[in-house]
Amino acid sequence: MEYRIEKDTMGEVKVPAEKYWGAQTQRSLMNFKIGGEHMKMPMEIIRAFAILKKSAAEANAELGVMDKSKSDLIGKVCDEILAGQLDDQFPLVVWQTGSGTQSNMNSNEVIANRAHVINGGSLSDDKKAIHPNDDVNKSQSSNDTFPTAMHIAGYKMLVETTIPKVEKLRDTLAKKVEAFKDVVKIGRTHFMDATPLTLGHEFSGYVAQLNFGLKALKNTLPHLSELALGGTAVGTGLNTPEGYAELVAKKIAGHAGLPLVTAENKFEALAAHDAIVESSGALKQLAVSLMKIGNDIRMLSSGPRSGIGEIIIPENEPGSSIMPGKVNPTQCEALTMVCCQVIGNDVAISTGGMTGHFELNVFKPMMIYNLLNSARLIGDACESFNDNCAIGIEPNHPIIEEKLEKSLMLVTALNTHIGYENAAKIAKKAHKEGKTLREAALELELLTNEQFDEWVVPANMVGSLKK
Amino acid sequence: MEYRIEKDTMGEVKVPAEKYWGAQTQRSLMNFKIGGEHMKMPMEIIRAFAILKKSAAEANAELGVMDKSKSDLIGKVCDEILAGQLDDQFPLVVWQTGSGTQSNMNSNEVIANRAHVINGGSLSDDKKAIHPNDDVNKSQSSNDTFPTAMHIAGYKMLVETTIPKVEKLRDTLAKKVEAFKDVVKIGRTHFMDATPLTLGHEFSGYVAQLNFGLKALKNTLPHLSELALGGTAVGTGLNTPEGYAELVAKKIAGHAGLPLVTAENKFEALAAHDAIVESSGALKQLAVSLMKIGNDIRMLSSGPRSGIGEIIIPENEPGSSIMPGKVNPTQCEALTMVCCQVIGNDVAISTGGMTGHFELNVFKPMMIYNLLNSARLIGDACESFNDNCAIGIEPNHPIIEEKLEKSLMLVTALNTHIGYENAAKIAKKAHKEGKTLREAALELELLTNEQFDEWVVPANMVGSLKK
Amino acid sequence: MEYRIEKDTMGEVKVPAEKYWGAQTQRSLMNFKIGGEHMKMPMEIIRAFAILKKSAAEANAELGVMDKSKSDLIGKVCDEILAGQLDDQFPLVVWQTGSGTQSNMNSNEVIANRAHVINGGSLSDDKKAIHPNDDVNKSQSSNDTFPTAMHIAGYKMLVETTIPKVEKLRDTLAKKVEAFKDVVKIGRTHFMDATPLTLGHEFSGYVAQLNFGLKALKNTLPHLSELALGGTAVGTGLNTPEGYAELVAKKIAGHAGLPLVTAENKFEALAAHDAIVESSGALKQLAVSLMKIGNDIRMLSSGPRSGIGEIIIPENEPGSSIMPGKVNPTQCEALTMVCCQVIGNDVAISTGGMTGHFELNVFKPMMIYNLLNSARLIGDACESFNDNCAIGIEPNHPIIEEKLEKSLMLVTALNTHIGYENAAKIAKKAHKEGKTLREAALELELLTNEQFDEWVVPANMVGSLKK
Amino acid sequence: MEYRIEKDTMGEVKVPAEKYWGAQTQRSLMNFKIGGEHMKMPMEIIRAFAILKKSAAEANAELGVMDKSKSDLIGKVCDEILAGQLDDQFPLVVWQTGSGTQSNMNSNEVIANRAHVINGGSLSDDKKAIHPNDDVNKSQSSNDTFPTAMHIAGYKMLVETTIPKVEKLRDTLAKKVEAFKDVVKIGRTHFMDATPLTLGHEFSGYVAQLNFGLKALKNTLPHLSELALGGTAVGTGLNTPEGYAELVAKKIAGHAGLPLVTAENKFEALAAHDAIVESSGALKQLAVSLMKIGNDIRMLSSGPRSGIGEIIIPENEPGSSIMPGKVNPTQCEALTMVCCQVIGNDVAISTGGMTGHFELNVFKPMMIYNLLNSARLIGDACESFNDNCAIGIEPNHPIIEEKLEKSLMLVTALNTHIGYENAAKIAKKAHKEGKTLREAALELELLTNEQFDEWVVPANMVGSLKK
Repeated sequence: MEYRIEKDTMGEVKVPAEKYWGAQTQRSLMNFKIGGEHMKMPMEIIRAFAILKKSAAEANAELGVMDKSKSDLIGKVCDEILAGQLDDQFPLVVWQTGSGTQSNMNSNEVIANRAHVINGGSLSDDKKAIHPNDDVNKSQSSNDTFPTAMHIAGYKMLVETTIPKVEKLRDTLAKKVEAFKDVVKIGRTHFMDATPLTLGHEFSGYVAQLNFGLKALKNTLPHLSELALGGTAVGTGLNTPEGYAELVAKKIAGHAGLPLVTAENKFEALAAHDAIVESSGALKQLAVSLMKIGNDIRMLSSGPRSGIGEIIIPENEPGSSIMPGKVNPTQCEALTMVCCQVIGNDVAISTGGMTGHFELNVFKPMMIYNLLNSARLIGDACESFNDNCAIGIEPNHPIIEEKLEKSLMLVTALNTHIGYENAAKIAKKAHKEGKTLREAALELELLTNEQFDEWVVPANMVGSLKK
Repeated sequence: MEYRIEKDTMGEVKVPAEKYWGAQTQRSLMNFKIGGEHMKMPMEIIRAFAILKKSAAEANAELGVMDKSKSDLIGKVCDEILAGQLDDQFPLVVWQTGSGTQSNMNSNEVIANRAHVINGGSLSDDKKAIHPNDDVNKSQSSNDTFPTAMHIAGYKMLVETTIPKVEKLRDTLAKKVEAFKDVVKIGRTHFMDATPLTLGHEFSGYVAQLNFGLKALKNTLPHLSELALGGTAVGTGLNTPEGYAELVAKKIAGHAGLPLVTAENKFEALAAHDAIVESSGALKQLAVSLMKIGNDIRMLSSGPRSGIGEIIIPENEPGSSIMPGKVNPTQCEALTMVCCQVIGNDVAISTGGMTGHFELNVFKPMMIYNLLNSARLIGDACESFNDNCAIGIEPNHPIIEEKLEKSLMLVTALNTHIGYENAAKIAKKAHKEGKTLREAALELELLTNEQFDEWVVPANMVGSLKK
Repeated sequence: MEYRIEKDTMGEVKVPAEKYWGAQTQRSLMNFKIGGEHMKMPMEIIRAFAILKKSAAEANAELGVMDKSKSDLIGKVCDEILAGQLDDQFPLVVWQTGSGTQSNMNSNEVIANRAHVINGGSLSDDKKAIHPNDDVNKSQSSNDTFPTAMHIAGYKMLVETTIPKVEKLRDTLAKKVEAFKDVVKIGRTHFMDATPLTLGHEFSGYVAQLNFGLKALKNTLPHLSELALGGTAVGTGLNTPEGYAELVAKKIAGHAGLPLVTAENKFEALAAHDAIVESSGALKQLAVSLMKIGNDIRMLSSGPRSGIGEIIIPENEPGSSIMPGKVNPTQCEALTMVCCQVIGNDVAISTGGMTGHFELNVFKPMMIYNLLNSARLIGDACESFNDNCAIGIEPNHPIIEEKLEKSLMLVTALNTHIGYENAAKIAKKAHKEGKTLREAALELELLTNEQFDEWVVPANMVGSLKK
Repeated sequence: MEYRIEKDTMGEVKVPAEKYWGAQTQRSLMNFKIGGEHMKMPMEIIRAFAILKKSAAEANAELGVMDKSKSDLIGKVCDEILAGQLDDQFPLVVWQTGSGTQSNMNSNEVIANRAHVINGGSLSDDKKAIHPNDDVNKSQSSNDTFPTAMHIAGYKMLVETTIPKVEKLRDTLAKKVEAFKDVVKIGRTHFMDATPLTLGHEFSGYVAQLNFGLKALKNTLPHLSELALGGTAVGTGLNTPEGYAELVAKKIAGHAGLPLVTAENKFEALAAHDAIVESSGALKQLAVSLMKIGNDIRMLSSGPRSGIGEIIIPENEPGSSIMPGKVNPTQCEALTMVCCQVIGNDVAISTGGMTGHFELNVFKPMMIYNLLNSARLIGDACESFNDNCAIGIEPNHPIIEEKLEKSLMLVTALNTHIGYENAAKIAKKAHKEGKTLREAALELELLTNEQFDEWVVPANMVGSLKK
């Protein structure tokens, strides 16, 4: 490979000749060989930096501390980054300095060098049209840019991927509530037979869970909408022009198309990442809900002959490399594996979030890496589960009816007529002797055949609540 | 000990003669010897059951399915429970059936038997005035009463203990923001010297964290305010009279003095406890924040001679059994230990929350036990930290000034005058040669003495943001 | 209440007149009102301190730095503590100073004052026969005594409660392996019907899990057997006589009846509690195993009519307050709730373990509180599950046979005769048309009736592995 | 793109014409669009499958159930996979079926098709020389191959990456123990000044932590060395020839160069992944240790002027994009971020590990993904920290001496001469009046100048323990 020499305040470094990055990016590449290829700084953060750098240049120009021509040049490179044309210029991994300084400098260096080339210069020129620190990073510090990029990328992922995909699943399940509203089936508590309800009731519980989860997630957005930018090194806004924080937030909001605002307190915004903790907590709640839903669907569809088998799920692929004809609830499995990951990621995020010191939390890359992973995984898994499973769920009527009919817990309907203790006698006798409730009831002479007909009607046992 | 014989649908059981509880409580005592004395069902749950049982009896009477006299009798016992007169009648541990059925039955049995005695009967009577299932548990199931008690107790603890005590600390810290607003000090990022800010700035970050945490916690209250009662066994409301769910929720809200409402979806309310997961998530966020705050205070007050020592905290007790005269940040330690516990409890709650099946989550006692512990611990620890530490925090002016003066990061003020690279030369020279910035700057001839005076003014470096 | 005045190096404090504790205990009581009654320093730690203080006094005497008479006096009080005669003298909570200094001083003060009384003095005497710091704490610091007490108490709980009770359950399950070794039943993978195995096979998996878990737990004992005592304040052993560390460890081992030794590195023993982290990790592994076992038993016994129902578990109590005759897998529920708690406790312990600084980890009380809870809970829950459930598990032969017979996955036996793809055709046809495998196979003319008889024999499908 | 048609038991699928994979891989690609490019099945698992498939083919041939020519063909493709020549043939993500069936089939299909091509056939041929199920998967099931691949890959990563890299760091730290053994410095407990020790002492604690962690990790290897292969679908070994399990394990051990053995209990090996839980637990312990070490180094090197500053760490890159000349403990930051991730991954693994049902745990891909990540991250981060930080750590002698001299806790040396209470008086007076201990001691007339010289000698306070 051919190299050119780049310099920073520490001295010279050899950089691949054709790459736009500079000395500090190269140092990070050499000093942080951790985790390999697949744990690189997420592209969402690179893109967020492009929005940020463009917005900062514009704000600087508008506030009179940068030439319009410089600002335009910077903006052009940022547009290239946003268009995906410079993706191979961001080689750094998550496991770098905890402030994300090196990724900030990666952006600064690439933008400065690429701008110089767009401007007609050459990468090997000693003096460049744009300086990575004095220009691209103007009125900024890694300490406020990186958390700003975290919030841009996190907010975007949540509202563009997570929420719509969870809502997609929620809507499908809501349709099932309506479709299954008359399917009376046995209930199960403690995994044991219980009084009946409808299949629609069961699905309404899932819908309610997702609605609560979505609400909880949306509740976290205002915190996430607050941008640290303007705080610079420690939150005081040193080296920023008057009015900069508000203006740059407005610019970012515009370019990102998101309702982002400047943080009310910049010290919190640098020193803590409770907004990330908060959003991750809501994703974890969704994971808890989805684990329940995924498990229920897995179990309700179990069989085909020796399980519960009350619903039928789509057959998407052969289930076994050894057992011919086997079909498995694979979408439930992918979904619930994702839930485990999100629950684990939440602990990673909490652990990093609590370990900041003084003016700076230095677990930033790890925190946003996990938040983005969780947000993407929850969204993708919900969509995959929706498209390949939920949408096709159907009741298995014969099984549902068979199980309902032989249930002993229909006896509960008798409580209000003959009392809990007498009802228990009937159930116990039926269970012990393998009889139907009716047989047991009549033998015990606790009611008549007609009373049984009138009182024990599963469809009447499911109706006092709308859903 | 003397015993009497009690019966349930399974047969006879010996119960201590003078205790009000019955067969099922006794069975639980014998079958669940787990965790010992100090892991009993929290008294908050017992009290919540008293509110619930009284409300249910009233609603039943009002809706015409219970005699007013029975309802009154039940209410009287509930009042005794609320007054703390029957605390020794609730001996069960957390680690029982996962639906809390046995604690529900403990309440039912104690209320029935005590009511019978109040009514002039004797514990040894065969037939009692009030039946634990048919009367005290009327229009109820463990499956809807226990989660209702969870929400009553959890909500109450959060609004009466957690929130006011966190707010108390928040208010103290807010006063410090004002008191310390002119105390210019060195900042620290990456635990390394950075540009200055005020001590008030630092405390404003803590206030912001707690405000965000309080907001996040309050966001969870609407979910927690929803009561499962009226769903009975599986959420359908079997065996409840028309209008019961709304009425009983209103009664509970009245007796508890809390804005509780009937759950919109009873299936979710029995089968999932995402409301507990949600509130615990917010408590975990507060724990993350308080860990940061506790650590900062611990470190800022470190010394007295070889640490950071920029603040002085109250001396409350001798710090060491071997090192005479030592004083330690013990309140920070208690606070941060509590934070660890709350973070762990949150994982326990998530694990239980995700493992419900079909119509019932059977990790209820464990979940509420952890939520109540977390809520109480966060509150108590904030109050203890407030009263015994935060309130007395004072700046250590001589140390603050000494550290500020010798800081190299004041050089950042020069960026906008002489550029990042020249400023770096000054800082590096000063660091390497053990000189002041001024000396290094003059020797490098990058600026004049007068320019240094004008440009490097710590107090001017902290001001562009209000707080 | 009547009071007397006690003093420490900070001044005077009012102490309840009849209590043996002194000023520092009282200060802790006043300064740490956190968590309430049920979160007191575990009695196991108090007892461990008694062993420790007695051993230290003896070692001091033997090494010539303490009068034999003082040592004897101290030993006498320690014996009283071990006999449970002074339990009400240890009122402090877990949430105190993170070094446990206050509980160390609680021991020192109670022992000193009680010794003075035994010696004929009075609590109100100005000068006491024994000094809490100079005598009871001689050659010690909280920093080495508290972690020593942690290891004594933790080791003891693990070998006396956890391990034997888990082994008890393991032994019961091992008996079931033998008893169920010929019970051929359907297997389930992905919760779906799969090829057959024996019920004994299933239980052998549980036994293997517990054996691995026990081995993992025992692997942690050597680390836990290392005692910090002799390191004093920072690990250097300042103020201890030559040979003290080894001698006092030997004394402790003798009094505790446990193979405890002096820590090879005292700095690690004070500054980190990785031994606690390590043991907790093994308990967490057991919790993971027990969750699987508890869930399997819960699900295998589900029904009675609409579940899986292949095993029958003991009926211990009425299962429902509303559904008469219901029996629930309550022991599985208590067990799995305990597992959640242990998994959460492990996170609390990790969080504390990682947050030590320099020469001292100050999350000691929280860490040992959680370890003891986890160790006790795992042990108690295994014993409860064993005695009230596992021991009584029986196969439900009719159900097992019915499910086995109609299984489609017996088709797997045909792979080696007619190939995976032909076998799949049979299974799919049978599934789609609701037929038996035999019917489908014959209709497809893929084999003869006789071949089916010869090749599809469930009992032959379970045999190639011993267990 | 051009396609060809592939079939499985469910029908036809279009597959990219030039790819070796078949219908089931393609179905997985279409059905599981979760997590994107960077969450693909780890290449370590693909390689482990190559070892496994080759070994199985050899064992099958040797046991007479496969033609030698088929076995050779399969072996050739496996060698190509191991040489990295077919990396682009494995496109599946982690978030697929929880048994890893689709990755097993991906291997089966690629090997079968590539073998056919090597054998002179064409991908478009209807009939192939090798069948993915009947040949490549012979005597196997996904249910035993995937966990076998998990153990091969996990074991390999631990012994080839994690352990040697942690040992590398341990060895460097051990050299520092020796190098720093005479550097007497102030100790710190509760983050407060305490009695002195040597810098070597501090580092010896780190070495001890890593040694304990390494031992704990190695303790988990025997469990991980057990291979599920031979259990096939449910653990019974259906469709395997006599002696197969032992033989194939031997072959795998040979090809992998690792001491792997056949699992004693195949039911545990399929239904639970406690071995993964166990190894992850040990990695978590190492993470806890490394967090302490990373934090200590970060804090000890803090400054340069207003921190603790007792050690000097290498300057690897400019630390700040805004603060010129700033150098940060970036390696500590990467290391501690990794620790958070590993702690979170452990929770993900536990969550998956506890949620298996009956004969199969279906969280396999998620569990091994996290274990491999944790193992790689711990290893890589230790090496990076070692090479770029630990190796260059030096004491900052002037700072160390300055802080030692002015310490008040040297007073502890006086306890044995003048008693704890008198010593406390001296320390308190010195602290309050800003005096030296000597000044305070003399003013209080508690000892003479000469006694002070004799008794208060830091170097004498660090020596009673070897390390």
